[in-house]
Amino acid sequence: MGIKALDYESLNENVKKVQYAVRGELYLRASELQKEGKKIIFTNVGNPHALGQKPLTFPRQVVALCQAPFLLDDPNVGLLFPADAIARAKHYLSLTSGGLGAYSDSRGIPGIRKEVAEFIERRDGYPSDPELIFLTDGASKGVMQTLNCIIRGEGDGILVPVPQYPLYSATISLLGGSLVPYYLEETANWGLDINDLRQSVAQARMKGITVRAMVIINPGNPTGQCLSEANLREILTFCYRENLVLLGDEVYQQNVYQDERPFISSRKVLMDMGPPISKEVQLISFHTVSKGYWGECGQRGGYFEMTNIPPQTVDEIYKIASIALSPNVPAQIFMGLMVNPLKPGDISYEQFVRESQGILQSLRRRARIMTDGFNSCKNVVCNFTEGAMYSFPQIRLPPKAIEAAKKAGKVPDVFYCLKLLEATGISTVPGSGFGQKEGVFHLRTTILPAEEDMPAIMSSFKKFNDEFMEQYEDNWSHSRM
Amino acid sequence: MGIKALDYESLNENVKKVQYAVRGELYLRASELQKEGKKIIFTNVGNPHALGQKPLTFPRQVVALCQAPFLLDDPNVGLLFPADAIARAKHYLSLTSGGLGAYSDSRGIPGIRKEVAEFIERRDGYPSDPELIFLTDGASKGVMQTLNCIIRGEGDGILVPVPQYPLYSATISLLGGSLVPYYLEETANWGLDINDLRQSVAQARMKGITVRAMVIINPGNPTGQCLSEANLREILTFCYRENLVLLGDEVYQQNVYQDERPFISSRKVLMDMGPPISKEVQLISFHTVSKGYWGECGQRGGYFEMTNIPPQTVDEIYKIASIALSPNVPAQIFMGLMVNPLKPGDISYEQFVRESQGILQSLRRRARIMTDGFNSCKNVVCNFTEGAMYSFPQIRLPPKAIEAAKKAGKVPDVFYCLKLLEATGISTVPGSGFGQKEGVFHLRTTILPAEEDMPAIMSSFKKFNDEFMEQYEDNWSHSRM
Repeated sequence: MGIKALDYESLNENVKKVQYAVRGELYLRASELQKEGKKIIFTNVGNPHALGQKPLTFPRQVVALCQAPFLLDDPNVGLLFPADAIARAKHYLSLTSGGLGAYSDSRGIPGIRKEVAEFIERRDGYPSDPELIFLTDGASKGVMQTLNCIIRGEGDGILVPVPQYPLYSATISLLGGSLVPYYLEETANWGLDINDLRQSVAQARMKGITVRAMVIINPGNPTGQCLSEANLREILTFCYRENLVLLGDEVYQQNVYQDERPFISSRKVLMDMGPPISKEVQLISFHTVSKGYWGECGQRGGYFEMTNIPPQTVDEIYKIASIALSPNVPAQIFMGLMVNPLKPGDISYEQFVRESQGILQSLRRRARIMTDGFNSCKNVVCNFTEGAMYSFPQIRLPPKAIEAAKKAGKVPDVFYCLKLLEATGISTVPGSGFGQKEGVFHLRTTILPAEEDMPAIMSSFKKFNDEFMEQYEDNWSHSRM
Repeated sequence: MGIKALDYESLNENVKKVQYAVRGELYLRASELQKEGKKIIFTNVGNPHALGQKPLTFPRQVVALCQAPFLLDDPNVGLLFPADAIARAKHYLSLTSGGLGAYSDSRGIPGIRKEVAEFIERRDGYPSDPELIFLTDGASKGVMQTLNCIIRGEGDGILVPVPQYPLYSATISLLGGSLVPYYLEETANWGLDINDLRQSVAQARMKGITVRAMVIINPGNPTGQCLSEANLREILTFCYRENLVLLGDEVYQQNVYQDERPFISSRKVLMDMGPPISKEVQLISFHTVSKGYWGECGQRGGYFEMTNIPPQTVDEIYKIASIALSPNVPAQIFMGLMVNPLKPGDISYEQFVRESQGILQSLRRRARIMTDGFNSCKNVVCNFTEGAMYSFPQIRLPPKAIEAAKKAGKVPDVFYCLKLLEATGISTVPGSGFGQKEGVFHLRTTILPAEEDMPAIMSSFKKFNDEFMEQYEDNWSHSRM
């Protein structure tokens, strides 16, 4: 027999080219160690519930009732569920056509898209059209669908921040496009310099690449910075001048841990700018139920909103969404609950506020503990996590460590992270998985371990790191002893 | 401003090429009419709950408890949930790492993949490896991932039955591959003739296409036939000789309405054939929670199982699955419940059997009512629905109707289906959406409307059809009156 279609040699090259470090070598090794009985702290993915964060009670009550609608006719239902959860379950079931077991419209349930539009209008102060909002199985699926429409071949470039969340690099590889990197400046708190951006576009054009879109992640992943309004204006002006679609990854909009730069949406800034920019720049914004204080990653719920996208294109995106029939319906209900939360006076309101504020305030404290912890370590410097869920410390590896990594056949930060994993059980992602400047090394960890475990985790990290640095530092007198 | 990246003119051509009739013109028109207040019977998609099928109680109880795990500590839980549902919820929660809100492994929860493997072993009599089973957001997503690995460009061909479920044609277009049709023979009860298959491959090769894979849908969609063991052996021998991956779409394996040809899996036949074929033919089989007597379409749960796929390729598929992090977790639990059902003696067993058998037996009766109904109509002939969820009658349109369609700028069967929709509210899919021989016309309808509504629907269809035929038949004497 010759080579078969699913032999490695004959697979689609774009598939093989994809790199996805968040679930890469480190994660696979961590899974192995876990199987062998080692206690692993998975900080490789922003997966709050996996690290003990409790789900918010009210939305879970509502979705449980929607899954078991026969409970609504049970005289005992009031013993297990509050009246507002029962009312909400009836509301969402009335928006479906056949409950949670029926495919919805491929764009999502119309009534929930309406609630999303109302949320956006309250948030931004501008009306939003439910027909331009599509619900998706997590934000990632929306990003993939959008890029699929934009990328026609390797001559099409997408501007992506570096360091970046590898969803973008992976999807661009898979679709056979070209990633055009623009570097975030670590010494300027991971700020974005428009001059750098201009240079990136110019360099790409020299190579014959048509730059078609720009991705921003705000708050940043893995870098944790929050973009200022002024910066967003510059970006939108740039997109206008360069004729770029802006993809606004705003999944961390609820995760902000400082007060100087609250979250502001790309869409609000775009609308504030007025014509011609507000009428011309094509923008797609993404949101999710996986982040914030919800952390409902496993439910896979998200949406995207389209601004200045012509109807014919909206129809094409609808058609593509139709191939997989519909996003999962339970997560659509979570999205409804997220954008249309309880109001003061509702029976469950106080519990909801207590739970959600408890999570957010704890995340704020953990962001601080982690940054301080990293900065107390030898050869480690770390910007404060202004938002999102990650810490992205720079690890200044001594030349001898880099040499040892080369001998072991590993990228230096992979080498460091593997050693960290073996020594402490802390499963991180090497900075090389997100992109970084030549010769500079990082790791990404989430700020999600339980607050009470944080001090022990950080001191275990510090112990490992400082010993590692000592071992590999060019300490001549030490090595001659 | 010039053309922008998301203007229709500049979209990815593969996106524009995609056709997806199940949610196409007919569906859009039906949605409009519904908005205007007309009562629509949606038989365009196999979406049982949307047409009133009740979900099975036990799995819904289990998943509701998994969504609201705090209920498990409530002393009143026993008033609303039976003990076996409580035990099952605890079991599935123990298999997750963080409940339904945490991303699972991108391949799905290991413990549930093990239950799937045990199900396959019981079904086929051969062991199955959980490491070669991936859980997905519905079977469609698995098909799309697989084709993404196989298709490298337009020189790669995939053999697809015609008529076919348009997931295949749409995905092949989107990925830029070539669909190589093989025709099912309507007069032989939609059977598959290996000689035809050989001819299709030869013709594709003449055009320079490398045929890499073959799709079978068993039981058939839209055609409803069940493949015999002898036919499956021929197909597998053909795949062996021609070096083709076999994609076995077996999502309707529980939906069989005759006793002569029970469902038999491609994998069992492959294993039965022994070496070299059983060791050589690469097979990927798909299953779902959306069909059968479950009909849990909106939950989006599926799996695929890989046979004779090398580990390096499995790793690549794992990597691609990782980009979207994980399939939704609630649907993974539905899959667990489907493959590991209640056993005699369990508290909820009798109710479960009553509900599931009630659905299956009613579907069997409905398949018969529908076939008989179509065959009683003027110029309509219809094979019996042996399996799956669809009826696919041939509509013999008179020349005058074809002419009228041309005048209206419509494909003839689209013209007929639109008239049917306007007259009766029955929303079907024209046969041209699935592919059919030149000059032959069909429509697809599901057999899913409630059994008690069936007689009225079929007589409303008959009334429309017979009047339509009369109107367009070349009845000279009549037209001179």
